[in-house]
Amino acid sequence: MSQPPSTPPRPRTVDADLARRAFDEALAQHDQAFGTFFLARLFGFEFVYDDTPGQETCSVSFELKDFMFNPQGTLHGGVICFLMDVSMGHLMAHLVGAGATLELKTQFLKAATHGRITAQGRILQRGKSIWFLESRLTDEQGEPLAFATSTWKAPRAKPGTA
Amino acid sequence: MSQPPSTPPRPRTVDADLARRAFDEALAQHDQAFGTFFLARLFGFEFVYDDTPGQETCSVSFELKDFMFNPQGTLHGGVICFLMDVSMGHLMAHLVGAGATLELKTQFLKAATHGRITAQGRILQRGKSIWFLESRLTDEQGEPLAFATSTWKAPRAKPGTA
Amino acid sequence: MSQPPSTPPRPRTVDADLARRAFDEALAQHDQAFGTFFLARLFGFEFVYDDTPGQETCSVSFELKDFMFNPQGTLHGGVICFLMDVSMGHLMAHLVGAGATLELKTQFLKAATHGRITAQGRILQRGKSIWFLESRLTDEQGEPLAFATSTWKAPRAKPGTA
Amino acid sequence: MSQPPSTPPRPRTVDADLARRAFDEALAQHDQAFGTFFLARLFGFEFVYDDTPGQETCSVSFELKDFMFNPQGTLHGGVICFLMDVSMGHLMAHLVGAGATLELKTQFLKAATHGRITAQGRILQRGKSIWFLESRLTDEQGEPLAFATSTWKAPRAKPGTA
Repeated sequence: MSQPPSTPPRPRTVDADLARRAFDEALAQHDQAFGTFFLARLFGFEFVYDDTPGQETCSVSFELKDFMFNPQGTLHGGVICFLMDVSMGHLMAHLVGAGATLELKTQFLKAATHGRITAQGRILQRGKSIWFLESRLTDEQGEPLAFATSTWKAPRAKPGTA
Repeated sequence: MSQPPSTPPRPRTVDADLARRAFDEALAQHDQAFGTFFLARLFGFEFVYDDTPGQETCSVSFELKDFMFNPQGTLHGGVICFLMDVSMGHLMAHLVGAGATLELKTQFLKAATHGRITAQGRILQRGKSIWFLESRLTDEQGEPLAFATSTWKAPRAKPGTA
Repeated sequence: MSQPPSTPPRPRTVDADLARRAFDEALAQHDQAFGTFFLARLFGFEFVYDDTPGQETCSVSFELKDFMFNPQGTLHGGVICFLMDVSMGHLMAHLVGAGATLELKTQFLKAATHGRITAQGRILQRGKSIWFLESRLTDEQGEPLAFATSTWKAPRAKPGTA
Repeated sequence: MSQPPSTPPRPRTVDADLARRAFDEALAQHDQAFGTFFLARLFGFEFVYDDTPGQETCSVSFELKDFMFNPQGTLHGGVICFLMDVSMGHLMAHLVGAGATLELKTQFLKAATHGRITAQGRILQRGKSIWFLESRLTDEQGEPLAFATSTWKAPRAKPGTA
């Protein structure tokens, strides 16, 4: 796709100050636990849980920064997968403890280029040993950007718990 | 799972020197293009292409570092998805130019905790407008760690090319 | 898993009258077109479309019959995939003409053993050349049985249409 | 796609004799067990197992018949999913007993219109409670038609077995 001559060329390097600030904050403030582990801090993830019974969600949102971009200048699909995984894994950890992802499928509906985006993880089915989850990624206007589903192995019940 | 008393507790923070070195190198050496974009540099991805006709591959390998870990102390599944996506996307870019991932599914066969791992992207089917790819992630002993398949939209043929 | 002695053994053969009736009706009434092709008739699929703009759906329902069962005595997972595919493909055909499935993922939430079940196909994202769809399978009580997502290639616009 | 005037129109009904013969044979010869259940008989599935340790496979092949076609006149994608599921589920049942499919993803590489096709199921990873499998569908010339991956819950070990 040729571009009109007036379009400024895409910068070949990322915003160094922005990246360094994100890195320094992540290094200073991380704690290798749910919600606060290093990569979650580096990307600036913020977590909001809704505990309404039967419709529990975990929403993870952050502001796009160009150090997360692919060579085409949009949010890297791999970062989207990472975010989707986090939104579902944190929901599960919040409700019953750390599970293990067996598989994750993400569909990429639309490229994201700027602003704040939010992935909302939700339960499809909650079994004794297996959970099925979904996550929807939207931009600030609520436009869908990606959709993911995953399958998880639940943590084993601790002795003495139901 | 209770652990024997002799196991040292897992550190709550990542190796700061290692993380800072990776970050500084990425900032100094990245170029927002295939093979050299910031996140590929930060994770330390190295690329090897095999152009044997009919069995082209792109192998992406790197050394695990604890700043890529999840709260449980193993390589984050989201980073694995990122890596798988990169191995397939770079193969396509290498062969015909940048495509767009429509969807990506990753199965997590075994947790990765240390050493060098390699994702090898390969073509399942190469169509005019749609490509199907797979990628296998293995450790240094060749043990399978993850398997991914994806569907891509090929770049439009440039005028004057077949 | 041993069963209590009072449980009658599962029959080793399907209900022959029921199967023959379904087959004869399918042979007599099919037409190799959307909604009426042979396998849709054999399984007894009934189609209901909702054309509400922005939330179009295609619901496909049918009564379980034991000739569709797996060796364990529940609806075969492959028949569920078939149904999910049909609910999404028919929605697309209804709206813009026959598309081509690029990929389909189905998660099996709960086994189905009897009664009427319904798969409802819905659009995740509608692009010019690529569509993303989902489908939810539920029983008569609305309990979720399966969830599917798929990616489709849209039919090429006919000359003279938008 | 307009067709040259010499192309005969596609028949609107399936070959009734062929369908009836398949149905009557299935009704006479089925047994609701692995390898012989009704739908496997109706489609004419033939099973071949390879028990080579570390590379076990289950190959399921059959001759296409037009009663399995979609409205466009090619093998229905849902039948392909069914076949892929069967090739993986039978491999598992053959090796350790009946498992439960958690999820199945199929990519459709090329339409199938005639002749004999074969799906070969194979193990990606064999865990204690979870198995990962893949299946490749090819035509008589070995050309790839479809690719599938799936995740399974293994049967619980019987008391007294390893």
